[in-house]
Amino acid sequence: MATVKLLGDDELSPEARLIFEDIRATRQTEFVNNFWRALANDPATLKRTWEGVKEVMGPGQLSPRVKEMIYIAVSVAHGCDYCIHSHTAGARAKGMTDEEYRELLAIIGMAAETNRLVAALGVPVDDAFKS
Amino acid sequence: MATVKLLGDDELSPEARLIFEDIRATRQTEFVNNFWRALANDPATLKRTWEGVKEVMGPGQLSPRVKEMIYIAVSVAHGCDYCIHSHTAGARAKGMTDEEYRELLAIIGMAAETNRLVAALGVPVDDAFKS
Amino acid sequence: MATVKLLGDDELSPEARLIFEDIRATRQTEFVNNFWRALANDPATLKRTWEGVKEVMGPGQLSPRVKEMIYIAVSVAHGCDYCIHSHTAGARAKGMTDEEYRELLAIIGMAAETNRLVAALGVPVDDAFKS
Amino acid sequence: MATVKLLGDDELSPEARLIFEDIRATRQTEFVNNFWRALANDPATLKRTWEGVKEVMGPGQLSPRVKEMIYIAVSVAHGCDYCIHSHTAGARAKGMTDEEYRELLAIIGMAAETNRLVAALGVPVDDAFKS
Amino acid sequence: MATVKLLGDDELSPEARLIFEDIRATRQTEFVNNFWRALANDPATLKRTWEGVKEVMGPGQLSPRVKEMIYIAVSVAHGCDYCIHSHTAGARAKGMTDEEYRELLAIIGMAAETNRLVAALGVPVDDAFKS
Amino acid sequence: MATVKLLGDDELSPEARLIFEDIRATRQTEFVNNFWRALANDPATLKRTWEGVKEVMGPGQLSPRVKEMIYIAVSVAHGCDYCIHSHTAGARAKGMTDEEYRELLAIIGMAAETNRLVAALGVPVDDAFKS
Repeated sequence: MATVKLLGDDELSPEARLIFEDIRATRQTEFVNNFWRALANDPATLKRTWEGVKEVMGPGQLSPRVKEMIYIAVSVAHGCDYCIHSHTAGARAKGMTDEEYRELLAIIGMAAETNRLVAALGVPVDDAFKS
Repeated sequence: MATVKLLGDDELSPEARLIFEDIRATRQTEFVNNFWRALANDPATLKRTWEGVKEVMGPGQLSPRVKEMIYIAVSVAHGCDYCIHSHTAGARAKGMTDEEYRELLAIIGMAAETNRLVAALGVPVDDAFKS
Repeated sequence: MATVKLLGDDELSPEARLIFEDIRATRQTEFVNNFWRALANDPATLKRTWEGVKEVMGPGQLSPRVKEMIYIAVSVAHGCDYCIHSHTAGARAKGMTDEEYRELLAIIGMAAETNRLVAALGVPVDDAFKS
Repeated sequence: MATVKLLGDDELSPEARLIFEDIRATRQTEFVNNFWRALANDPATLKRTWEGVKEVMGPGQLSPRVKEMIYIAVSVAHGCDYCIHSHTAGARAKGMTDEEYRELLAIIGMAAETNRLVAALGVPVDDAFKS
Repeated sequence: MATVKLLGDDELSPEARLIFEDIRATRQTEFVNNFWRALANDPATLKRTWEGVKEVMGPGQLSPRVKEMIYIAVSVAHGCDYCIHSHTAGARAKGMTDEEYRELLAIIGMAAETNRLVAALGVPVDDAFKS
Repeated sequence: MATVKLLGDDELSPEARLIFEDIRATRQTEFVNNFWRALANDPATLKRTWEGVKEVMGPGQLSPRVKEMIYIAVSVAHGCDYCIHSHTAGARAKGMTDEEYRELLAIIGMAAETNRLVAALGVPVDDAFKS
């Protein structure tokens, strides 16, 4: 029930087609998920978003699966069901173990609880945490 | 400007005193931050929350600094300024490098952007992500 | 899967019936969407909410389609799928072009990203922005 | 109380310096606000974010002040105090009138109320809003 | 650091003055808190909001202090520091006991935790909860 | 479309089986809802979460139905559809009347509106609310 058409490969503008080629080449799979097919209606945002994701989720000091786990944490706190599913699949594909997944969820839940307790109590930041 | 008194060490109930001792022993520092001093007004919640945090943030498959980074990610998405400061300090104390911190923030920002684009577009979950 | 019955026209209380008449007269359509049919279970909240929406979304300095775009922005940030769909339909009905819609979504995504970066970094408000 | 140093002009890396120059040239002012001075600790994110903001907030079909108003709407829903202040200042600088500002806030408040009523009631999307 | 002037009693428009009189009469106190002084810049929204609050928070089946506790719960989840402080003061003034306050906070924290675990796990609604 | 298997009674680990027995004994029903069946994949989190919920939602000064209403308020603000449905069913089972439910929803909506108006306006906390 998207608000725009999910574009098939033969409905892409030339600019979008180039991005899809890069998505496929970068991820080494023919599969392009619905997020990009929705974004393809706006080639400029498709390009900017894909290039941002590619840069941010690409090789770095944090491992690919840790990056996906951080992505899941944010997506859960924002209540984005699609993102939770796509990045949980992504994290598993990149090697997240069942035990790591259990730890991830436990941290997310605990953080949510203490975040809200802190807000309710209006706890002031300790001097030790400043700087 | 907390909604309750931040309790000093000499204002603790016996139950809260025991938890503070465990916090100090577990973290190997005399410092007990304001969150616990606010929670100490409710010894039952103090106990439950501390034991939860100790279990969840204790040794596991994810490294202590990765656990703190996930905590930061949730806290940012929930807009908890106190938690952001305390867990950023915690992550650094546990070895998060400047480069890891930069990657963490970039992922949080990118996830926030795509989370909201997905919501705006109403993107349906791909079959490939189900199960 | 509403938590209350979506009331049909013949199930309305007299107070709710009057509000439905005003919705139809104001919008010049027979169609009354599910939100009002759910709210109709509480005629007082139905009345207050409808009168608020009519006042706020009625003629003013901002054009009807800009008002709907602002409504979409809030609904996306709150993750309200129903509201996103209803107000995206509303904005289009009031003349939002495809290009305006693309710009709207790009701004929402960008704002989400910078909102969270700001939170993570704890950026203090510049003096220039005060007052 | 930022989590990183807000960099002064003489503390910038060469990459960050170039971005600051572009910010000043694009905005035609010497003033560079704290957000960019915090981001400057990560030149890659500074560059990507600035280029995104410049593209998204630049000339388009929506007027500059409408774009800022949409930015405010998202920032309010995300509870980003810094962003609210900076973009309210921005909207005023770009011509938002007091009456438009009043209408903006009224819409944000009303959207928040109906967003949450919809969630509480679990209202299903009307067929008329699909597609 | 409000975005508008907090209006003093001698700066009110005639319409705002009437609302302030009603606030004072309804609450039986001379004190009018900052929220209304900020809203007074927009008499229409001041009127609509005050009348809504008066209706919703007025006598009903739920006791005044339970109503304030529900208000606190929402304000915590939305991260509204001002609202948390004003409604915590309100709940106490209306008789919320320390023990009730402790229970309230424990529920808020627990709900936050399970809300996010549910989101992370994508738990489908049980048939037993539908109807 | 859960991200994990919803475990049937005959798929439980011994630790999870014990928790399910306690859920059934405490609630005096054979029915165990999907949330616990998803959590059962992580017996440690299942145990900690159930024991927390049992403690927090158990007998206290606030009535069981008021506790459920507070839970609903938080769940709505967090946009957790599952939690809204399960706790609305729970509140009704514990005696929440239709009129109390109407008042609950009206407060949630009003709080959401004023929360966001306060954020937009950057209202400073009154001295009277401090302490």
